[in-house]
Amino acid sequence: MTFTLSPDAHISWPLGFSSSGVSAGLKSGGALDMALLYCHVPAVAAAAFTSNMFAAAPVQWSRQLMSQAQSLRAVISNSGNANACTGERGLQNARRMAELSAELLGIKPEEVLVCSTGRIGVPLPMTKIEQGIAKAAAALSPQGGVEAARAIMTTDTRPKYLGLTLEIGGKQLRLAAMVKGAGMIAPQMRSAQPQATMLAYVTTDANIEKEAFGSSLESAMQASFNRIIVDGDTSTNDSLIALASGLAGNPLIRKDSPDWHCFNQALTFLLTGLAKELLLDGEGVTHFVELQVSGTRTEAEARRIAEAIARSPLCKTAWFGGDPNWGRILCAAGYSGVSFDPSKVDLDYGELPIVRQGMEAGSCEEEQAKLLKQRDLVVKLKLGEGQAAFTLWTCDLSYDYVKINADYRT
Amino acid sequence: MTFTLSPDAHISWPLGFSSSGVSAGLKSGGALDMALLYCHVPAVAAAAFTSNMFAAAPVQWSRQLMSQAQSLRAVISNSGNANACTGERGLQNARRMAELSAELLGIKPEEVLVCSTGRIGVPLPMTKIEQGIAKAAAALSPQGGVEAARAIMTTDTRPKYLGLTLEIGGKQLRLAAMVKGAGMIAPQMRSAQPQATMLAYVTTDANIEKEAFGSSLESAMQASFNRIIVDGDTSTNDSLIALASGLAGNPLIRKDSPDWHCFNQALTFLLTGLAKELLLDGEGVTHFVELQVSGTRTEAEARRIAEAIARSPLCKTAWFGGDPNWGRILCAAGYSGVSFDPSKVDLDYGELPIVRQGMEAGSCEEEQAKLLKQRDLVVKLKLGEGQAAFTLWTCDLSYDYVKINADYRT
Repeated sequence: MTFTLSPDAHISWPLGFSSSGVSAGLKSGGALDMALLYCHVPAVAAAAFTSNMFAAAPVQWSRQLMSQAQSLRAVISNSGNANACTGERGLQNARRMAELSAELLGIKPEEVLVCSTGRIGVPLPMTKIEQGIAKAAAALSPQGGVEAARAIMTTDTRPKYLGLTLEIGGKQLRLAAMVKGAGMIAPQMRSAQPQATMLAYVTTDANIEKEAFGSSLESAMQASFNRIIVDGDTSTNDSLIALASGLAGNPLIRKDSPDWHCFNQALTFLLTGLAKELLLDGEGVTHFVELQVSGTRTEAEARRIAEAIARSPLCKTAWFGGDPNWGRILCAAGYSGVSFDPSKVDLDYGELPIVRQGMEAGSCEEEQAKLLKQRDLVVKLKLGEGQAAFTLWTCDLSYDYVKINADYRT
Repeated sequence: MTFTLSPDAHISWPLGFSSSGVSAGLKSGGALDMALLYCHVPAVAAAAFTSNMFAAAPVQWSRQLMSQAQSLRAVISNSGNANACTGERGLQNARRMAELSAELLGIKPEEVLVCSTGRIGVPLPMTKIEQGIAKAAAALSPQGGVEAARAIMTTDTRPKYLGLTLEIGGKQLRLAAMVKGAGMIAPQMRSAQPQATMLAYVTTDANIEKEAFGSSLESAMQASFNRIIVDGDTSTNDSLIALASGLAGNPLIRKDSPDWHCFNQALTFLLTGLAKELLLDGEGVTHFVELQVSGTRTEAEARRIAEAIARSPLCKTAWFGGDPNWGRILCAAGYSGVSFDPSKVDLDYGELPIVRQGMEAGSCEEEQAKLLKQRDLVVKLKLGEGQAAFTLWTCDLSYDYVKINADYRT
């Protein structure tokens, strides 16, 4: 199976979609802050939402739609205000966003998902929002995807989107996605429910069964967004939404078919690329760290150790400082709650042996420092307890992370 | 029961103790880096150690002594090198520290506990250590406590020690403690074994049963050091050691007696004071935050929520920025893993209502900002699920925390 990456392909590039990004005045300085995504035909939909107890009003609205609707038509999004912790009024406002969008698009409110991101606890300025929705509906275009990607940004420094083509049943399918992230980024890994950790949108013109599409999204999410930690905070608003127009005209993709496996691979490739992009554009990030933990009894143990390292402020600040301080990595593994024999632990940075049997391996300090100065670092922690493994992607903790988050409100 | 605080009382102020702090050249610039604490008579001992899988060599040595010895005589400590992840050689070096101290003091190696703190993974420079031990033994004095408190410091900015007197059975008892902390500070709360999270030493001239002394230390630790989080990293070297000389001549304090309850109160008061001191001297700390979580079904739930908030980089950076961003506190509670009804959640800063029933309470923003500018903040999060509660002490995350830990090695 082959697929071809189209880095410039945006969210309304697959057949059947239009999108737009406009300024509604929620952010200062005329920055884009409302995005509309529209499918010209009823779309097969799949989605995942945050597990935070304080699920924002738009998440509550969208989650309810997903539990009922067979197909969906549009997603209305705003940045600059999360519409979270806003009570009954927040729910009414989320519904109003769907109703107004539906009215302008000539569809039903129950076909419109809603996403919000930004400050928690402030009521939406509905006059601005309503004007913004009207503007966004008027601006809809198959070429609107770049503006849409910009309009969902908060502390992101750049729009993040990607697309690819794949061939199934002699037809060319298009698959695209966009994402925003930057802060409050952490997978909630131990829930039985699928979960997302950012705002992410997927569109495709594939003709695919609803159940097959849902499973695809779930497995691609587990392999991508569910493996990243920026700061360990899981947002109230995380949403991952996927729409399939079916207009590529391929024979229906059914679950567990060879075509479905191809589609899965392509979707996983796409979301993995965007997950790494999201991490690199995380708040104040200067280093990308791949944590490969292996030799545990179960995958859950490897994940738990990787998570402890990825959340450790001491590991994160050492990476920021380019400090090969491996003791902090072992220390974090040691308090993760997983039991193991310390004298059987090996650690490598890339191909360089750092720790053997729980002790310094004697590698040249200059070589270590050189590795740590590069943007990307691969940390391989090997326990001697079993055959399971897990890989997690994370980043450093810099002055800029503190600066951005000490100043966010003002 | 009354007790009298003696802020200048140091670790060898209780009857029967001598101490010293000297420079062995482990730290640069002639800073004090080795401390010796000696009891002139066999002391009743109690201790708790880290739960980290990579327990350092001195912890392994000391833990073994505690499981065997009935009484102890001395503690030899060094800063500047943790003797952790140093394998068999590290264990030999820890034992050598005990042996040499014992030789110079005319006691048995099995009566000497060992503590180390500093860089992980580097073999101890034993020539310097041996010279340091000789120097420390020669410098022993009942007045040596301030130097001892300085000699155990790493990134601490000031020595931390405290003492008090209490009367039991018509006799005056002295109780003193010293502590070092600053970074890698987090309680490991869910273990059945008592645990410590820093280097802390307690001395007293109380005449007290071994079992009663152990229970006192455990309960005082749970109420103090086990309630603080600086950065959420639990060290490989944490040790809490307590020695009682019995020289005050009071009638033996037995477990569950009225005298024992008095002694407990005094010890808890002392360790609570030092735990707060430790937090305020944490790496880069500019704000002290008391998290009072209540209204949960169990204390463990309240603790879990408090811990999520205390570990949240977004909450910690907001406190640093003096930002009353309550949404981040609710968000952290929401992803803590505890289930609750968001519409029953109240939040206060001190006496100021911030959130009522999951929504902004409408307090004046200027008043909020004024509260957040003060050094100390009390955060009260009230759920509507039950009657349990837990209080945790934590701090902000500042530029200086990043600076200190990005530069620690070099």
